Amino acid sequence: MTHPETTEVNWLTAEEQRVWRSFLALSRGMQTAIDRQLARDSALSGSEYEVLVLLSESPTGVVRSRDLLGELGWERSRLSHLLSRMARRGLLERLPCDSDARGLDVRVTPEGRGAIEAAAPGHLEMVRAALIDQLTPQEMDTLRSIADKVVPRVKDMGLC
Amino acid sequence: MTHPETTEVNWLTAEEQRVWRSFLALSRGMQTAIDRQLARDSALSGSEYEVLVLLSESPTGVVRSRDLLGELGWERSRLSHLLSRMARRGLLERLPCDSDARGLDVRVTPEGRGAIEAAAPGHLEMVRAALIDQLTPQEMDTLRSIADKVVPRVKDMGLC
Repeated sequence: MTHPETTEVNWLTAEEQRVWRSFLALSRGMQTAIDRQLARDSALSGSEYEVLVLLSESPTGVVRSRDLLGELGWERSRLSHLLSRMARRGLLERLPCDSDARGLDVRVTPEGRGAIEAAAPGHLEMVRAALIDQLTPQEMDTLRSIADKVVPRVKDMGLC
Repeated sequence: MTHPETTEVNWLTAEEQRVWRSFLALSRGMQTAIDRQLARDSALSGSEYEVLVLLSESPTGVVRSRDLLGELGWERSRLSHLLSRMARRGLLERLPCDSDARGLDVRVTPEGRGAIEAAAPGHLEMVRAALIDQLTPQEMDTLRSIADKVVPRVKDMGLC
């Protein structure tokens, strides 16, 4: 696209643009890979897998829907539709929240635990083959340090 | 989740898991930030912005829908629904493809160019503030070298 001469926008330099496009390609490539590997080899979508990870890692198997929303960064309607679909499939239950009359607790069922335990080996094998095994120790450290700076920054900006 | 003793899965080590979770948080945080900044400040969604970037960067303003699909890595139905919605809003036109009777050309309209030119400054300001300006030159180099290894690997695996 053209850059109007009259603007005072701080456009990205060519080098910055290359870095940004590399990041986008990496981020989208891994997201697509997650979705396609799970679609091919498991009974779960990428979104369902994400929800079940959070539920199955809770010591009680229960997470408040508000906390799921905070962790996932999704719009409320997207989570709500997904939870309905997963409840119909027997992967989780939605319960009134003990401590908040307007809240909702989400509990993983034995079927939900079974589904993620069946899906996890293939998912993690893909993550290892596509990303982790490609990285040097220095690249691993740098990836963590970038995330440790950027994620809080985005939160400070009120955008995630 | 528990790791059954009987499996031979090559689980991630604690350090590898931290790296993977950092990457996921970074990737999702930036995606959420893109969507929310555009929703707040522009007339375009994140997906619409992505499509218009590809169209407006083509010298002719035209891209085959098959090529959009390849670039975006989406499911066909997602692209198809989005293109219909964007055509109804006057942001693009869908035309029969000259060289492929079953193909479809997608052409950006002046309204589409206007929409992305209006959205771009705020979008790029966010990208700079959230990510680019946080990175050292060494971190920029490492991010590019990671993407340059991982994106082709994921393609080789047939997953993006």
